[in-house]
Amino acid sequence: MEKLTIVKVGGGILEDQAKLKALVKNFADIEGKKILVHGGGKTATQMADRLGIKTQMVEGRRITSTEMLEVVLMVYGGLVNKKVVAKLQAHNCNALGFTGADANIILAEKRPVKDINYGWVGDVKSVNVPTLQGLLDQNIVPVIAPLTHDGEGHLYNTNADTMASVLAGALSQLYAVRLWYCFEKPGVLKDAEDDSSLIEKLFHSLYKAYQQSGIIKDGMIPKLDNGFAALQQGSKEVIIGAASALSQDRFSGTQLVLN
Amino acid sequence: MEKLTIVKVGGGILEDQAKLKALVKNFADIEGKKILVHGGGKTATQMADRLGIKTQMVEGRRITSTEMLEVVLMVYGGLVNKKVVAKLQAHNCNALGFTGADANIILAEKRPVKDINYGWVGDVKSVNVPTLQGLLDQNIVPVIAPLTHDGEGHLYNTNADTMASVLAGALSQLYAVRLWYCFEKPGVLKDAEDDSSLIEKLFHSLYKAYQQSGIIKDGMIPKLDNGFAALQQGSKEVIIGAASALSQDRFSGTQLVLN
Repeated sequence: MEKLTIVKVGGGILEDQAKLKALVKNFADIEGKKILVHGGGKTATQMADRLGIKTQMVEGRRITSTEMLEVVLMVYGGLVNKKVVAKLQAHNCNALGFTGADANIILAEKRPVKDINYGWVGDVKSVNVPTLQGLLDQNIVPVIAPLTHDGEGHLYNTNADTMASVLAGALSQLYAVRLWYCFEKPGVLKDAEDDSSLIEKLFHSLYKAYQQSGIIKDGMIPKLDNGFAALQQGSKEVIIGAASALSQDRFSGTQLVLN
Repeated sequence: MEKLTIVKVGGGILEDQAKLKALVKNFADIEGKKILVHGGGKTATQMADRLGIKTQMVEGRRITSTEMLEVVLMVYGGLVNKKVVAKLQAHNCNALGFTGADANIILAEKRPVKDINYGWVGDVKSVNVPTLQGLLDQNIVPVIAPLTHDGEGHLYNTNADTMASVLAGALSQLYAVRLWYCFEKPGVLKDAEDDSSLIEKLFHSLYKAYQQSGIIKDGMIPKLDNGFAALQQGSKEVIIGAASALSQDRFSGTQLVLN
């Protein structure tokens, strides 16, 4: 199977010019077929503030009103996506930026209202593998913003970690997928305050135990759930690490392992 | 030669929900390969206002400061582009929205400063025909926002009429191109106040005469120059007309004719 590398990069890196510059160069250096999935939540919150729109988060997820949807369309789909694309192009990386709505790449449905109404937030239903394959075969490097649609004209805000996970899972049909989550920490830490407490290999059983004992908590849980889901769907490698650990087609941090 | 239809649609239609709905349906009904190029200047001006950024226009062209570039990246590249894409997808039209920076589709250079410094405004240098052909061959319908790049990491605001014209010209190497400019008037009028004064066929010599006598003036001149340039580059048909005249794979208005 041909190799495919999917890199997910979050807001903290996108908004730091020096970190972004390094990430773009290192991503451009990755060999073979590749996809970049990005967030941009911090910029979205800043832009919402400037427009007088209040940001409301529940367990790290953004409540997406009609006004907030316009903000994330602008920030994720336009501002962040196009800046990253232009920078990658300057490194001879043939980036094409789009969202899950484009070419019907990711179909979603509105998250059902249980305790919380998240508004225009979509849960992924399916990934359009043939179209992605067609783009990759054209030597295009997809740069994907975390937005999806329902095929009936509605756009949804969708978590970028989840997008990366479902893309990795679906594309494992065709490729040996490496999924690399880049964030601010060196990986999964036993002690969030101590970078030297890095867990180099995190077995799923240990993850569950650490979760129960409270060693792993908060925002790491959905991120790791997404990572393990990608492994369960057939991804060959899932690593969570610092953006600065990405270099010369290599990445290090915490490797997730099914057991 | 295979047929390719390029439709350019401006801000006045994009911002009117009823007109946009009709346009999307009629565009989706066009047979064969097609491309939509859109503007969005009115929404950009409104968004700039909300952000406290002053809009300055010179002869219909937007002076594009760094702050204004961010506005047009958000509005053209994100908000307008993705809304149109999602609506087209709902009509089973396989829209993929992007800018001229994506996949290096349109390379531009910063407009030289003569009397006026337009800021981050780009003049088109070249069109990436093979990549567009690859996308069209994949049954993708490109929906292109009026932004370009220089290949060195800089993004530019670029006139949408000009983008449509250069795309039509370049793609005439491979396709029998029909270029349809949709705007608010029924076409080129002898009397701007009288819709019944439509010129059905405008020969280039007559255009020059009308321009000298002041019958054709202001914003129509760059639009018509773009239209005639597309014909000179090999487009088979260039028509300027009302968005409402687009229906069932047909369009009417003023047809431009070289002579």
